[in-house]
Amino acid sequence: MAENRILDDVSHRRFNPLLNSWILVSPHRTKRPWQGAQETPSKTTLPEYDPKCYLCPGNTRATGDAMPKYESTYIFVNDYSAVKEDQPDYTSKSSEDNDPSSLLLQATGVKGRCYVITFNPSHNLTLADLPPVSILPIISTWTSLYSAHLPASHPHYTPPPPHLGLAPPKQQYSYLQIFENKGAAMGCSNPHPHGQAWCTTGIPDEPSTEFHNMSEYKQKHGRPMLLDYVNLELTKRERIVFENATWVVLCPYWAVWPYETMVLPRREVHCLPELTAGEKEGLAEAIAVLTKKYDNLFETQFPYSMGIHQAPVDGSLWEESFLHLHFYPPLLRSATVRKFLVGYELMAEPQRDITAEQAAEKLRALRGDEVYRKYLE
Amino acid sequence: MAENRILDDVSHRRFNPLLNSWILVSPHRTKRPWQGAQETPSKTTLPEYDPKCYLCPGNTRATGDAMPKYESTYIFVNDYSAVKEDQPDYTSKSSEDNDPSSLLLQATGVKGRCYVITFNPSHNLTLADLPPVSILPIISTWTSLYSAHLPASHPHYTPPPPHLGLAPPKQQYSYLQIFENKGAAMGCSNPHPHGQAWCTTGIPDEPSTEFHNMSEYKQKHGRPMLLDYVNLELTKRERIVFENATWVVLCPYWAVWPYETMVLPRREVHCLPELTAGEKEGLAEAIAVLTKKYDNLFETQFPYSMGIHQAPVDGSLWEESFLHLHFYPPLLRSATVRKFLVGYELMAEPQRDITAEQAAEKLRALRGDEVYRKYLE
Ligand SMILES: [Zn+2]
Ligand SMILES: [Zn+2]
Repeated sequence: MAENRILDDVSHRRFNPLLNSWILVSPHRTKRPWQGAQETPSKTTLPEYDPKCYLCPGNTRATGDAMPKYESTYIFVNDYSAVKEDQPDYTSKSSEDNDPSSLLLQATGVKGRCYVITFNPSHNLTLADLPPVSILPIISTWTSLYSAHLPASHPHYTPPPPHLGLAPPKQQYSYLQIFENKGAAMGCSNPHPHGQAWCTTGIPDEPSTEFHNMSEYKQKHGRPMLLDYVNLELTKRERIVFENATWVVLCPYWAVWPYETMVLPRREVHCLPELTAGEKEGLAEAIAVLTKKYDNLFETQFPYSMGIHQAPVDGSLWEESFLHLHFYPPLLRSATVRKFLVGYELMAEPQRDITAEQAAEKLRALRGDEVYRKYLE
Repeated sequence: MAENRILDDVSHRRFNPLLNSWILVSPHRTKRPWQGAQETPSKTTLPEYDPKCYLCPGNTRATGDAMPKYESTYIFVNDYSAVKEDQPDYTSKSSEDNDPSSLLLQATGVKGRCYVITFNPSHNLTLADLPPVSILPIISTWTSLYSAHLPASHPHYTPPPPHLGLAPPKQQYSYLQIFENKGAAMGCSNPHPHGQAWCTTGIPDEPSTEFHNMSEYKQKHGRPMLLDYVNLELTKRERIVFENATWVVLCPYWAVWPYETMVLPRREVHCLPELTAGEKEGLAEAIAVLTKKYDNLFETQFPYSMGIHQAPVDGSLWEESFLHLHFYPPLLRSATVRKFLVGYELMAEPQRDITAEQAAEKLRALRGDEVYRKYLE
């Protein structure tokens, strides 16, 4: 703890080995005076069913398609997808090696498919409101979606189960990014609990950088970086938020967002289909506990972006991949005071005030078995 | 234009050679239906002097320090700086090369100083409200600040001019990041026109990555990357927003923010003190025109983060550096509809809908000589 107490008081940079980047930490700034108003806990005022919600069972979407009367989760292709399955091929022509135009104006076409995944038929039940047993079907749906996008020859390939109503992808995609935006602060206008998954040709930048750095670490040190990391944190015990027999939730040493967390398995796992039944239950518990703690922190619907990083769906980079979840929440001091990534952060380097250790301590102390809204009732 | 028309209709990724990163462009999404309300142009309702503003001349800041009755610009050290000049030295101890703790928990102390720079004594005059001749003193102040942080032996070193009231830095810092956050959308609560400048030991991540990539390009191709780039854009003429004899304003091919721009000199310049008097006037004009166009786009006080990238102040990386400005504005379709960098963008890759060419076309068509507020009066 001695080293840690030093970092509670000096400005410093921390290294992110996953992205090979740095972040500026200014813990002394937490001592400046705040004039923030005390906010009252927010209650749930949403109905269980909203006739105007395009995600509620039985309702009609803008395109005229109807949502079935689904009872657990439901998947459909986004009506305004960021990528399309059918379009002409495109690659910017590159001439000689020394030509500025081919060096500086590089583009390549991207095909893909964007899914929306509803988590629950109830309009007003977020992940934080659900017990682990109700989060399990969401994990199964993510897993089925992933498996259905693997090459048919892959050991983990399974065709999409009929109840999902999923048409097989028209071609082999490279990466499937599963994520959730929660709350207006994260640009999500519909409170109905849902996430997304975009599959694309080509591996996007962020996972691609992670694969590169994880691969280098494994080659040099003979062990998976994130397995080393989770074991290290289990001995340090300064940044752990929650743990069970199969998973660890922690504030990474290099966290950028005030209450950023990672959810890590205790063994080397490359993708969702590799999880045992027990590990899926463990993950459901970890998500249930973490999202309840988040809501309890400022007694509000805690906004965040969540994403799952795992092996590409084209079967490549298997040994370099390590399944993990990121939660990036913007709130800083209350239900309305958020962190902005602007100015110095965009131009120079991300910056934070409270340390990852201080954030983990706060999250650890909160109840993870029930959400504050239940006590208010 | 043929190539361009293709990219107006297919999803594609574009390469950012400055950051060695990619961005997903989905131009077909601009065709989806929008229900946004038509917004009325916002008028200025701010007074010229606000007795409660801690930046207005003659007022007292939270710490009790008084702002002098300054008549042009004014610099002071931020009362709650993100970095300090005096603190114990710190570097995380590294043991053997194969030890997870020294590999994964890396930190290093950062010292520095954070300045606030008021642009004008008037509370209600933003850069968009100022003629070029009133922007010139701001450029001079940035230049003086930069020069004062160079080593005394450096050819561009000059001691801080007495009228700035600037104490010499206590040590040699590595980098000076000059930037401006404008508007509540960028976390800036005080409308009094002002920017910031943070100097630090160590070069922050973003300029550091740019130096690395610009250096590689120059070594390989024998020319500065950004000089090649500005010349290339001057022949293509698809992404140029404004140009004069010394500067070019353009939407970079790899822009992430909807109306992101770069301001580039027409010759190789490493830092502000290298600019001739004519180039300083040209830059003042470029900033005046761009900020007026921005305000005119949605007839609102257009929020943005602006930053100046140039050579480190410790004299290093001189040949690798190339002076340029970035403007990152969040607005997408109106004064209230903004772009969010969330979800897929945080987890996978930045994404945009309108292309850089479409954005440049819109900005080019707007008046840059006067701001819409003047016509409304
Ligand atoms: Zn990751
Ligand atoms: Zn730059």
